[in-house]
Amino acid sequence: MPLFNGGILSEVMRETLAERKVSPESVHHVVSSLVQTSLRGVDSHGINLFPHYCRAVVAGRVNGNPRMTIDKTGESAAVVDADHAFGHHAGMVAMDLAIELGKKSGVGAVSVRNSTHFGAAAYFGLRAPEKDCLGFAFTNADALVKAFGAKQAFFGTNPICFTAPMEGEGPYCLDMATSLVSWNRIKNHRREKERIPAHWAFDEEGNGVTDPDRARTLNPVGEYKGFGLGMMIDILCGALAGGPMNGDILPMFTPPPNPVKRRLSHFFVAVDISRFIDPSAFKKIVQSVADRIRVLPPLDADRPVMVSGDPEKKSYGARVVSGIPVHESISEEFFSLSPGFRKAILP
Amino acid sequence: MPLFNGGILSEVMRETLAERKVSPESVHHVVSSLVQTSLRGVDSHGINLFPHYCRAVVAGRVNGNPRMTIDKTGESAAVVDADHAFGHHAGMVAMDLAIELGKKSGVGAVSVRNSTHFGAAAYFGLRAPEKDCLGFAFTNADALVKAFGAKQAFFGTNPICFTAPMEGEGPYCLDMATSLVSWNRIKNHRREKERIPAHWAFDEEGNGVTDPDRARTLNPVGEYKGFGLGMMIDILCGALAGGPMNGDILPMFTPPPNPVKRRLSHFFVAVDISRFIDPSAFKKIVQSVADRIRVLPPLDADRPVMVSGDPEKKSYGARVVSGIPVHESISEEFFSLSPGFRKAILP
Repeated sequence: MPLFNGGILSEVMRETLAERKVSPESVHHVVSSLVQTSLRGVDSHGINLFPHYCRAVVAGRVNGNPRMTIDKTGESAAVVDADHAFGHHAGMVAMDLAIELGKKSGVGAVSVRNSTHFGAAAYFGLRAPEKDCLGFAFTNADALVKAFGAKQAFFGTNPICFTAPMEGEGPYCLDMATSLVSWNRIKNHRREKERIPAHWAFDEEGNGVTDPDRARTLNPVGEYKGFGLGMMIDILCGALAGGPMNGDILPMFTPPPNPVKRRLSHFFVAVDISRFIDPSAFKKIVQSVADRIRVLPPLDADRPVMVSGDPEKKSYGARVVSGIPVHESISEEFFSLSPGFRKAILP
Repeated sequence: MPLFNGGILSEVMRETLAERKVSPESVHHVVSSLVQTSLRGVDSHGINLFPHYCRAVVAGRVNGNPRMTIDKTGESAAVVDADHAFGHHAGMVAMDLAIELGKKSGVGAVSVRNSTHFGAAAYFGLRAPEKDCLGFAFTNADALVKAFGAKQAFFGTNPICFTAPMEGEGPYCLDMATSLVSWNRIKNHRREKERIPAHWAFDEEGNGVTDPDRARTLNPVGEYKGFGLGMMIDILCGALAGGPMNGDILPMFTPPPNPVKRRLSHFFVAVDISRFIDPSAFKKIVQSVADRIRVLPPLDADRPVMVSGDPEKKSYGARVVSGIPVHESISEEFFSLSPGFRKAILP
């Protein structure tokens, strides 16, 4: 599998989007998010999506030159209308606003309407700890997770991201879909022709399947609990924004050209730590919790106990140096977008 | 099993606590929370705990006459020192403050330190929708949930409660522990001498057990995801409050007299819906989501698809009329606290 250098890849991605008349701010956030996410090892939400995003902006489904509007509705609340911008851009405008409101009043909460796929929630969540804030990032998505006790999907994989700064390393970062496993994991098993455990996914009738090709819906995490969390997130995002929810949200992947807007909704919160405790003391505390977890006796001697975000920290360290692996077929898509991508391949 | 009328039970509980020199405000919140929770069918956090609370306040572990202090640290943030009050009382002081801050600024967040067991998180969460707010309530607890990949427990069952008002009925209410099943469910299987599924709980070495008597720790919901949520909640509660966390929190049940304070921490958030969307429109939207869920074709024709909080709504309706069932042994504890409890028994 070819390995791409993240820095050179970023440069060529920026050029490629600029050629498609995407605004500099949108270019910045799309590329920063995708490359950061791939370096963190989250391949489902990283650069693999770049060819898709290029098609979506050319088709007019995503607006590369948005005129976003911001309505501050209180000392600690605001609403952003994203004007169908890349979600990576709209989300960061909203997260930065939540942090600004939080630094002024203690907590800031920002709802985003008329947005598009925002990639990895951690891209926004990780911004808050830079300013000594806790961060929350949520988005809704099209129906894919089976309603508990039903035959069919109802909510999307509606993720929750939570971040907190630590003393001696990057932030604590929990970024989880509210499905038990991701759709990407089902697709990986399809590609590798491997069976899946029967509690991961279901067919049209809501029966568990072991053949990944027959999977149509995902199991919510913890069954009725994950189903409830999915509804919480659709309320925080879609209901507060007055946007489409669950089954009314259009799917992400449709044959191009498809200019119909998806109107996704997001929700961001920043909590200013200094209103509750001295931030240095807070960071020591969280660091100490993480350290105590990592020295717990593991069940399997070869698999040390990890903290949420640890796999991503390890991946980041490795991939900054050794490159981002990209499947052959996706590399070819990159090369057909721009021959410049060949420069990014590590020897 | 004897059935208690909720109204008469409440009266005698109030007298019983007052005789133990508990302040009127604390009496009000302890009794309101326990009876509401039992009516809602959540027996693990309802009146069954009343004899325990009576012992705890007599032993001096819980302070029946707290001098709580409130420090408003921003337009949208505050810290409450609970002075070891009943958590039911301290939590409602904090939730009401979060709502007040939220109504003024858009969002309110309140941290509580030096508290005790607060019962069901829904007691606080359900307050927010009365004022057209979304509510969040969190608490930390002593270590009981096994760290993912480890042999031993690390975080408590650290619950998350989220509420939102609906148009035509009581609020949407998700109130879930971050363990897959509750400890109470293990105890029920012990009493009934029934086996448990091997993925519910573990022995001292972290191995799954089917004999409930051998269970020492619980599985987090969704394995590493629930473990991450448990850490999120311990950060929001214990780290922000600078209180004890996970393994440093003393257990709830110890032989009396045990006056050592537990110093639990809680965190509450209220989001003023009107800063984001017209509350009437919001309530219609959430109602419509719930209605659409309830008409989904069920997997099992005898088990209609339900929304989080539906079992509690059904139980409330039934138990207000027909009474709260109380196990014989616990009824006896009530009668030895006060013969007046016999008046509450339904014929």
